[in-house]
Amino acid sequence: MTDHDKYLQRAITLAAKNVEHGGRPFGAVVVRGDVIIAEAVNTLHTDGDPTAHAELNAIRDIAERFGNASLRECVVYASGQPCPMCLSAMYLTGVQAVYFANSNEDGEPYGLSTAAIYHQLQKPLAQQSLAIHHRPQAEGKPLYIQWSQHQS
Amino acid sequence: MTDHDKYLQRAITLAAKNVEHGGRPFGAVVVRGDVIIAEAVNTLHTDGDPTAHAELNAIRDIAERFGNASLRECVVYASGQPCPMCLSAMYLTGVQAVYFANSNEDGEPYGLSTAAIYHQLQKPLAQQSLAIHHRPQAEGKPLYIQWSQHQS
Repeated sequence: MTDHDKYLQRAITLAAKNVEHGGRPFGAVVVRGDVIIAEAVNTLHTDGDPTAHAELNAIRDIAERFGNASLRECVVYASGQPCPMCLSAMYLTGVQAVYFANSNEDGEPYGLSTAAIYHQLQKPLAQQSLAIHHRPQAEGKPLYIQWSQHQS
Repeated sequence: MTDHDKYLQRAITLAAKNVEHGGRPFGAVVVRGDVIIAEAVNTLHTDGDPTAHAELNAIRDIAERFGNASLRECVVYASGQPCPMCLSAMYLTGVQAVYFANSNEDGEPYGLSTAAIYHQLQKPLAQQSLAIHHRPQAEGKPLYIQWSQHQS
């Protein structure tokens, strides 16, 4: 068994335990070098947070314990295909790679696929199912200049 | 001034105050009916959480105080164009609509655009800049069946 498979199977074990405790079937482990530095599950059932997906929980945990920059050295192993929220968080934080076991196709019969959201994000704003309105405000224009001046 | 503009300008005011306090130039308000029920800013500078964007903070706050279902009655007003993590969270939670003032084009000169991540998400997995690997595991197959049996 490769290390990739070993880490994925650990993520699956976490997901299965989460189901036993009333949670959703998602787990994730994050590896830096040859070491698992974070393990997480979907915690919607315990904290009521709809953003508390396994991968996002793991990313938050690592940022808190090791700092944001450390995420660039990390590889994420997820039991299920990352939703676009979690995949975007990986892009935002610069993680090196992600491996997943169960696909959106596997999840589709159970309502556990996020393929439909990916599909929406691929459309122009005006064609998406969520009503997205761009309303420029004169007051907003100085914001980014103000911010950039604070960075120097 | 319409209510939409009023709420967007409130989000901008929050963003400007956040910059004054050393934070990033992003604020959001969430409205249910005619009432602002949540206000939030990007809190990366205070809590070190790379997922603590204004919109995600507001969504978490509402879920905690009013429950997830209440998000379906909500409209989000963001000072800046939602990143794909935050937009995905809006899809996941079923918010009604989102309005934003500053666009990704406005943010581009300051490194405050997430257009590049949207662009990645529009590609097939194998063509994205983040290495995304699907490795099915036999152990993963029973997970969703196990979960669905817990739902009945």
